[in-house]
Parts: sequence; structure tokens; C-alpha cells
Amino acid sequence: MSTSQPNHPNAGRRMLLGGSAAALSALGLASFTRGAQAQTAVATAAAKPLPSYAAWKDANALIVHTSNTIETRRSAFGASVITPSPQLYVRNNLPPVDAAVLQDRDAWVLEIEGVKKPRSLTLGELKTLGLDTVATVLQCSGNGRGFFPSKPSGTPWQVGAAGCVLWAGVPLRNVVAALGGLADGARFVTGTGGEKIPEGVDPASVIVERSVPIKALDDALLAWEMNGEPLSLAHGAPLRLVLPGYQGVNNIKYVKRVAFTSSESKAKIMAHGYRMTPPGEKSSPEQASVWEMGVKSWINGPLPEDGTLQAGLVQIHGVAFGGTRAVKGVEVSTDGGKTWKAARLVGPDLGRFAWRQFVVSATLGSGTHALMSRATDVAGNTQPEQREENSQGYNNNSWRDHGVTVTVA
Amino acid sequence: MSTSQPNHPNAGRRMLLGGSAAALSALGLASFTRGAQAQTAVATAAAKPLPSYAAWKDANALIVHTSNTIETRRSAFGASVITPSPQLYVRNNLPPVDAAVLQDRDAWVLEIEGVKKPRSLTLGELKTLGLDTVATVLQCSGNGRGFFPSKPSGTPWQVGAAGCVLWAGVPLRNVVAALGGLADGARFVTGTGGEKIPEGVDPASVIVERSVPIKALDDALLAWEMNGEPLSLAHGAPLRLVLPGYQGVNNIKYVKRVAFTSSESKAKIMAHGYRMTPPGEKSSPEQASVWEMGVKSWINGPLPEDGTLQAGLVQIHGVAFGGTRAVKGVEVSTDGGKTWKAARLVGPDLGRFAWRQFVVSATLGSGTHALMSRATDVAGNTQPEQREENSQGYNNNSWRDHGVTVTVA
Repeated sequence: MSTSQPNHPNAGRRMLLGGSAAALSALGLASFTRGAQAQTAVATAAAKPLPSYAAWKDANALIVHTSNTIETRRSAFGASVITPSPQLYVRNNLPPVDAAVLQDRDAWVLEIEGVKKPRSLTLGELKTLGLDTVATVLQCSGNGRGFFPSKPSGTPWQVGAAGCVLWAGVPLRNVVAALGGLADGARFVTGTGGEKIPEGVDPASVIVERSVPIKALDDALLAWEMNGEPLSLAHGAPLRLVLPGYQGVNNIKYVKRVAFTSSESKAKIMAHGYRMTPPGEKSSPEQASVWEMGVKSWINGPLPEDGTLQAGLVQIHGVAFGGTRAVKGVEVSTDGGKTWKAARLVGPDLGRFAWRQFVVSATLGSGTHALMSRATDVAGNTQPEQREENSQGYNNNSWRDHGVTVTVA
Repeated sequence: MSTSQPNHPNAGRRMLLGGSAAALSALGLASFTRGAQAQTAVATAAAKPLPSYAAWKDANALIVHTSNTIETRRSAFGASVITPSPQLYVRNNLPPVDAAVLQDRDAWVLEIEGVKKPRSLTLGELKTLGLDTVATVLQCSGNGRGFFPSKPSGTPWQVGAAGCVLWAGVPLRNVVAALGGLADGARFVTGTGGEKIPEGVDPASVIVERSVPIKALDDALLAWEMNGEPLSLAHGAPLRLVLPGYQGVNNIKYVKRVAFTSSESKAKIMAHGYRMTPPGEKSSPEQASVWEMGVKSWINGPLPEDGTLQAGLVQIHGVAFGGTRAVKGVEVSTDGGKTWKAARLVGPDLGRFAWRQFVVSATLGSGTHALMSRATDVAGNTQPEQREENSQGYNNNSWRDHGVTVTVA
């Protein structure tokens, strides 16, 4: 979106920052108008511009860590269930494919292997095989890494490497059916990205290729549309493998190959990357990979960024999701986790892969209040108090880490 | 959104138009790259720029009829359930309020009358009284006017004066409860817009003030957020009265007063505007007002704009809604309404006020095919074949009018 329009929908948000964000940015001050918690991440990121492939995004809603890691500000989530594309985070492992592919999206070719009749299909052909839509939480497995005291290497995401978006495309199972069904021995869905491999490096060391258990086929979608628009390069145009409930890295952008394989990919990003490696140890294929997301929630309002609140009634709200399982309930604490109160789940339920909005009415007196939220999924799994320590800072769903402290006059 | 970014999410759509839309527009050709049906509306509108208050919108997705009437192109709806804000239509009866009000949204004042304890509340105060979200179809009652052979005065909207969006705000009933409940004799919810009244005219002749039956209170929301962002001026910032299931004009933008009244407003827009006036007669308060929306659907793909299709399997898709009642089913015809086939409702169900996506797989041979869709709501009301004739072209939900004809090689 343009940042020069006086009537831009986000003009109000910018005003909350105390003036024109663009003007503040020019003074190098934009990073320091946020609350104390947000400053941690912002300070390490400084005020970098959006990369060209994501220049259409809403700069005021985002923290640019690097050209391939861009985070949604916690204050930009709002209270509605879908994250608008201009506010959605970006995490690429390699630069996007060349924009020239968008000149003829339907000509994009996908190889399908591990079926009875393996072949390639163009996107134009895929579009004839079915159409479905699904809402999913898209989340980088490193979301929440910024809360690890051990400061693992990697982007110090707080809550904003996540969003809830709508996808349209063809169910992968339709494609499998059209090609005669799965070949024998298929145990994994392995997706490969079409990014250009830099010269002079071993392709296996950088190629984006991930395997997930074959059960993911049930819900997998080959998507060409996100949030009602043709996919953007920032999010995987022209075709993305969407695996509802699985951490973002498994949702292969620019997907050029889907193979139903008997073993996991040997690519580095699968064999050694994104593993739950105990602190101090080396990563290995024997450690758990970041597959299904755990149950998680966080509060999006009120926030420290809102400044000092007035004593009295407030509406505490946030988001909760359960990976592949629906959220059953959310509890909220205003005393740092000593006591809890059931929240209401509000607004439309977009299905088990989407997040839900929750709200609690609370009366806050003067002083500081540590607000926490804790979700439980339909299988009875409750969001844990403590993160699972691991060397790379993955899968943080600790409710304590995700709390916020607000001040009331 | 910027239109100068080569990687803009809509770059692909622009390519479908045969080149840069901006370049075509400069040549005065943009209007004539669409299919035959779309040209009807576009030709009367010519290629006007977006007004400043809506300059952040996606010009390539929109037809600018006038500065206060902007339509979504049928080809821009995509197959996902929520209409992104940059693609959403705009229909204002007066110019928006001054952008200066966005500098302190929470200071906006709403008067509440017709309750036991009438008073004014600031938006900041309203925000403490509750938080809920709802997805609704927002539709101008003149949507489909462009299909009336009688060519009624007013904007010749085809299908694009409609969208499905998410709202967040406080339920109006919470506000009523906080003010002691309804006063005796309340039969209507009357909302008044805060637009500036032009000098030298009788305020009642232009003020945007509408009344709807009191039962609308059950679902009404005072909304400050749309699609996850603070409301924009184009859509009613800082506060809008959202009446789920009611035609757009009743959803008062810039709402400055909500009154629970014993009779309908005497403002011209209520007493004489938006009435179902028989052809050739004068409008009067005795005629039906455009309140609840009727059951309706239309096809968004394939479209004549897609050019000549290849023979074989296609996925016919569109949207269907039932006003205040959920959609039970949709049928699709590929032979102009002679035979019908049940469509699948796909994707998330956002509740009874939202629209649903429907899809039918069909095999089309070479020739032309008249594609029609026909929705039925849960009360058993089926979308009619014929529009209800009226002098101003309101409430067109004729399935025949909304069909499209595609060509297969």
C-alpha cells in the first residue's frame, strides 16, 4: 500500500505512534516509539526498508529484520480473524523466483512423483482438477524465538511470524486420484521449491525441500490464491503447497515438485535444519522435525504500546490455535498466571486450521498487570507454561513467554 | 496499494489484461480489454481515477463510476470468501467526513437516544463495553441495476457493488444494556451519518439517516475495524453501524447518532429514497424500503474475460448469500437454466450473514455455454428467475440476469 496517502486506512495507526511514521523513520526514531517489549526486536532490526518483492506491503505494520524475514507488529493484528496480506509476515529461505514467471502463471510446471502415473502438470491443468478453499494459521516455526533467554541464532521473532489466511487451490488428493493413486511405499509428502540455487554451492545444502508424514495429504492444497488475490511472490507465487496445521517451512513456496516418498528428503533444510536439537548438541535427522504446530495463543490487546490505560473495564483479546486440532477454549489471567478466567471465543469459526479470536472483559485497577492467555485444544492439550528448550529456538508456545504487561493509571 | 511495483500481487491480473493496465489506461484502452458484458458498465464510466480518500485501493480491480461509486470487477473476486479491502466497492451518499477525525479516533462522539438513560459516548468509551466480530455481505441495494433493461437512473452496477468483509466492534445491544435498556415505544433503529451537510440545502434532503425494524438490534454492531484494520474513510471511519443482512445503505458510515424511535426517519433518503417504487410511479413512504437482502448468487469463474476456454473439465465457482438467512444450497446450470446440478459449498462457513463459495465440476464441449447459478436459503426461499421491476433498480437478485456466457474452443 502507498504510504503517502493522507487517508490511508492506517493513518490512525500511524497517529498512535505520535506522528507520521515516515517522518519518524526519516529521523531514525520509528523504532523507539513502540512499547518496551517490542523494542527488543525492533532495536536489533533497525529501520530497514521493505525488499522490492514485498514493497506493496504495509511498512507501518511490519518489522523488517532482513530482506527475507519480515514480522507483523503485535499491534497490527487487530481483532478480526483474517490477517490482511499487506500486514502478513514474510519468511523466505531463498530469494523468490523471478517475477517473469507471473507473466504466464498457468504455464508453471509441477512434477508429481510417487503416484501410479507420475507426470508433470501445468498450473492451468491443475486448475481444472478441483477447487477448494481453506483458512490456515501460517506460522514460522521460529515464531517466539525472541523470547528465548539463550538467544538462539536466527531471527528473534516475537509473535508476528504468524497470520491466519485464506487459500484457494486444488486439493492435492484430487491430483493423486487423477494420476492413479499413490505408488507403493509412500510414507512422506515431499515438496520442493523452485527457487534458483546460487552458483558454486551444493544444491542439497540450500534447496528448499521438506518432507511431512503422508497423513498430511488428507488436507494438503496446491494453492494459487491467497486472501482472494492471485498469490504474490512474497508468499509463493505462482503455486504453493499448503499443509494446514504444519509449521510454515513445510508449506513450500514456488513448488515445482511434489513427491510421495518412502523416506525423508536428504536436503540440509530437512535432515539438519528445523530439528528440535537439545541445547548444546548438534542437529541430526533423529531429532524431531518441526511439523505440526502446538497449541498456542497470545494477547493482541491491550498492549504496552497503547500507553497508560484508564482504570475500569477493558476488553482483553487475542488469538488461539491448535495446529491440526481446533481450539476448545482459552483462559486469561490478569495476575501473571496465578488465577485464570475463561475467555469467550468470538466471531466466525473458520475451521480447525484457523485461529480463533478470544475476548475477556476485565476490570483493571491502577498499577501494572501481567496479562497471559492459555489455550486448550479439542484433544485436551493445554498450552504449556514453559517453552521446550532447543538450540535453534523453534516451537515456542509457552504462555508465560507470550504475556504482556500493561500499566493502568 | 502502489500500482508501480513490478511484483505487486496483482501483476498477474494485469498481465491477463494484455499488458500494463496503467499503460493501457493512458491510451484510453483499459475499458475495452474486458469481456463484452463488463464493457457495458465500463463504457459508461470511462477510465476515471480513484478519488483521494480511496486512492489506496487496487485500481486494477475496480471500475470507478464516480468519486462516490466504485465497483469491484467480477474477475477480481477470486475464489476466497473475504473480499480484501483494496478490492472492495465504495458507495457514499455524501463525501466522507474530514480526515482530521482520524487523528483521534477514540474522541469520536456517538449520541444514543431512545434508551432509558440517553447520553453520548466516545469511541474510546464504546471500546470498553464489549468486543465481537462478524462477517457480513455488504451490498449496495442497487447492485445489479445494470441488468435492468429499463435503465433506471443511478449507477449501473453489475455484480461488484458487494463484498464479504469482517467487522470488529461492540454489539449495539451491549450499549443499550449499559444505558438501562430501550425506552418505551422503540420500534426502529435509526442511524444518522456524521457527514458535513452542504450549505444552502435543507438538511433533511441530503442527510444520511436510515431506520430499520427494531429486530435488527439483535445482530447490530458498532464497528471500528474492517478486515483486520482500523476502518478507512472509504468505509465509514471512525465508526460504522453494521446491520448484518441489511442492504448497504442501512449500514450508516461515520455514525454520529443511533436512536431507538417509534417511527421511521423523515429524511428524504428514508422517506422517498431506496423504496421499491413500481415503474412509472412516484416514490412514497408506503412502499417497501430496501432492508433485508434477498437470496442471491452469481458466478465469478469462468468468465467471458477469461477468453476462449479449452474443451474439457472446468470448475465453475461463485458466491451465494441469503441476507439474514444462511444459504442451504446452490444449483448451477450450463445450459441457460434448462437443467440444474447441485453445487458444493466449499471453504469455511463464516456464519449466516457471510456469503459462501460454491463450486461445480463440469465438462464443457466446444461452443457457447450460458452459465447460471441459483441459491436457496435455509427458509426455502429460492433466488427468482426474474427481477422485481421497480423504478430505481433496487434488489435485483434474478438468476437469469446474473448469468454469464463463456466460449469453448
